[in-house]
Amino acid sequence: MKSYCELSVEELKSIREELLAAYEDAKGKGLKLDMSRGKPSPSQLDLTMDMMDTLTSESELKAENGFDCRNYGVLDGIPEAKNLIAQMMDVPAENVIVCGNASLPIMYDTISRSMTHGVLGSTPWCKLDKVKFLCPAPGYDRHFAITQHFGIEMITIPMLPTGPDMDMVEKLVSEDEAVKGIWCVPKYSNPQGISYSDETVRRMASLKPAAKDFRIFWDNAYAVHHLYEDQQDEILEILSECAKAGNPDMVYEFCSSSKISFAGSGIAAMISSQANLDAVRKSMTIQTIGYDKINQLRHVRYFKNYDGIKAHMKKQAEELRPKFEAVLSRLDKELGGLGIGSWTRPRGGYFISFDAMEGCAKAIVAKCKEAGVVLTGAGATFPYGNDPKDSNIRIAPSYPSAEEMAMATELFILCVKLVSVEKFLESK
Amino acid sequence: MKSYCELSVEELKSIREELLAAYEDAKGKGLKLDMSRGKPSPSQLDLTMDMMDTLTSESELKAENGFDCRNYGVLDGIPEAKNLIAQMMDVPAENVIVCGNASLPIMYDTISRSMTHGVLGSTPWCKLDKVKFLCPAPGYDRHFAITQHFGIEMITIPMLPTGPDMDMVEKLVSEDEAVKGIWCVPKYSNPQGISYSDETVRRMASLKPAAKDFRIFWDNAYAVHHLYEDQQDEILEILSECAKAGNPDMVYEFCSSSKISFAGSGIAAMISSQANLDAVRKSMTIQTIGYDKINQLRHVRYFKNYDGIKAHMKKQAEELRPKFEAVLSRLDKELGGLGIGSWTRPRGGYFISFDAMEGCAKAIVAKCKEAGVVLTGAGATFPYGNDPKDSNIRIAPSYPSAEEMAMATELFILCVKLVSVEKFLESK
Repeated sequence: MKSYCELSVEELKSIREELLAAYEDAKGKGLKLDMSRGKPSPSQLDLTMDMMDTLTSESELKAENGFDCRNYGVLDGIPEAKNLIAQMMDVPAENVIVCGNASLPIMYDTISRSMTHGVLGSTPWCKLDKVKFLCPAPGYDRHFAITQHFGIEMITIPMLPTGPDMDMVEKLVSEDEAVKGIWCVPKYSNPQGISYSDETVRRMASLKPAAKDFRIFWDNAYAVHHLYEDQQDEILEILSECAKAGNPDMVYEFCSSSKISFAGSGIAAMISSQANLDAVRKSMTIQTIGYDKINQLRHVRYFKNYDGIKAHMKKQAEELRPKFEAVLSRLDKELGGLGIGSWTRPRGGYFISFDAMEGCAKAIVAKCKEAGVVLTGAGATFPYGNDPKDSNIRIAPSYPSAEEMAMATELFILCVKLVSVEKFLESK
Repeated sequence: MKSYCELSVEELKSIREELLAAYEDAKGKGLKLDMSRGKPSPSQLDLTMDMMDTLTSESELKAENGFDCRNYGVLDGIPEAKNLIAQMMDVPAENVIVCGNASLPIMYDTISRSMTHGVLGSTPWCKLDKVKFLCPAPGYDRHFAITQHFGIEMITIPMLPTGPDMDMVEKLVSEDEAVKGIWCVPKYSNPQGISYSDETVRRMASLKPAAKDFRIFWDNAYAVHHLYEDQQDEILEILSECAKAGNPDMVYEFCSSSKISFAGSGIAAMISSQANLDAVRKSMTIQTIGYDKINQLRHVRYFKNYDGIKAHMKKQAEELRPKFEAVLSRLDKELGGLGIGSWTRPRGGYFISFDAMEGCAKAIVAKCKEAGVVLTGAGATFPYGNDPKDSNIRIAPSYPSAEEMAMATELFILCVKLVSVEKFLESK
């Protein structure tokens, strides 16, 4: 296929005519599809419906240490839930705190607590003139929303195929005491599906921060969310890497079962050093009498162990894979060689990242919306919602069916072509 | 019975001998009883065990508005959960936000948010030199722990039989802009079981605070926790009273089902004006994608409506009443007329409050502990754990059985007598 940049004005105009006609047609179809958020589909959620039968009125609702899960107490999680998370995340159970229904509130609380109480005795961040966070981008909009909410200045770090640009990270972290943290989705990153290379993880663990209260916020949301049996990304375990590098307290890791069992009714955990967890527990003991232990018990009794989770994630992959492939095969076929966009090919996670020509993302998202296909807002993947190139678009294939994804992708491709042609015509 | 203060030194010494012998006997029994916390007993929790059968793999897990409760979304609670809480708390459903598993974290979050973001546009409290809270005492230790955690200065307000000393509250609130809040347990208060009089509620609602961001923290934890069918306290509904008095935004109300269904696996809610709730939602949308909606659905499907809750609370009362009566009958019989203590006679809630002679509470609690009966730490019911009179002791009859409560109370009475006799002997 001929790249758009090689086309003459006449050729471009003729293509535009065709595309406009097709777009009018598409609008007439009354599509109503949402590929904006990384939400599980109903059929994916059906896969754990039998979890609802795990605990009944006949069940013994005691944890393995004899604790009655129906009652108050047990601040940081029942032992078997800690063990399950520990197996899944490849860390010792004593480094795990099991919390409530999702990991986002744990991250929010962690930032909030740092603002009001500091980190292991440091000055509360709210008392400082300036607090900065490094934000590898494209990244997760809800991370950026938290730091923005607390008035933390966000510095965009480019994402490379190996993870964040570590030269830039190392320089900023070591030189600027105001830099207190970095947001990371280290495996099947949101939205690119990039998994950090071993070198990236080691360099991350070996950072020499100017600020003693600098922390890596390691949101390992997609640790077990592989799409393929035979091609799975693995990353180095960050806690032990930090310890090896002499930075045992430098990382907070987060994970949850939101995209394993039920979104919003899962169990979530924080993983860190004893010193960090002790500080967290000290604050937690003021904040709560304990999280929902019955739901922790339900999860452990249902999945039993890490093998149970792996078996279940294989079923989820069968559900998700066709949707990813519906997108990718069409992008390959329709946009390959046109020079008007590039996209990632993740082996796991929940997203595909698309980079349009500079200055085209907002227009593409708007055109899709006009024809009934909702995408994540352009710019959302960057701090302050500001993509300097107006280029990145996050595609979330999880919620619609594979057939719907095919239709949505076709419309998306049409919009990419249309906006790109117009861009070329403008510049000629 | 003769009051201890009328006894001669010889009489006191002779009584002390008897008491000491009895105490040594009691220690030999190897008691191990806990009446320290307001925890439900296992048999009380058994009353809702059939809630575990409410949702099964066959259930339609959709809210009445069609929303799939298994998925992300619905920030502030499913409509039917809002309705259930609204009925129970006698407020419009639109004034209700349903949150997670307990109300303590909502209160913590509310303070924390005020620290970092202020209240409806006010200066964040963390930026102020001084923030003060009024703390009616004896009160709930976990309230005081939250304000202490955030470095908020606590001012003790005496509790009268009608509720907090409103003369003092009115004066402090209207004169001091640093006073930003007051902790209230308005019905069957912790630990005294006092319900605020109509006049107290009206005066509370009519406060004229110097600080625009002053808020009443109305922890209506025991709203439906009556011990008797025929003697039930009712208090005025605070939200409408505040509105009537021209203070629509002055109150945050909190409640939960922790002591209705399962402690720590219930549902909890915040009730306030639209302006306040909008501000809360603005922050919540950063903090969470939503609370556990499946558990909200489970609660509504189980209780169905307020009548369902009332019927259940009647069963709970049958469970709790004998325990309260085991304590009260013994206190009446053994301590009545001795002039060495007074106690409350609550018609609901979870506690009995005992006032020993000045300077005796710590010694009594220590003596009980030595013989195997754990009480809430003396002083815990006051800000900073400091009961200026060292007099108040909180008795929590809910966890042990009625028989155990009888044994524990007998030991308690023995310790009260022993410490009091020694006090008299010291002063003679």
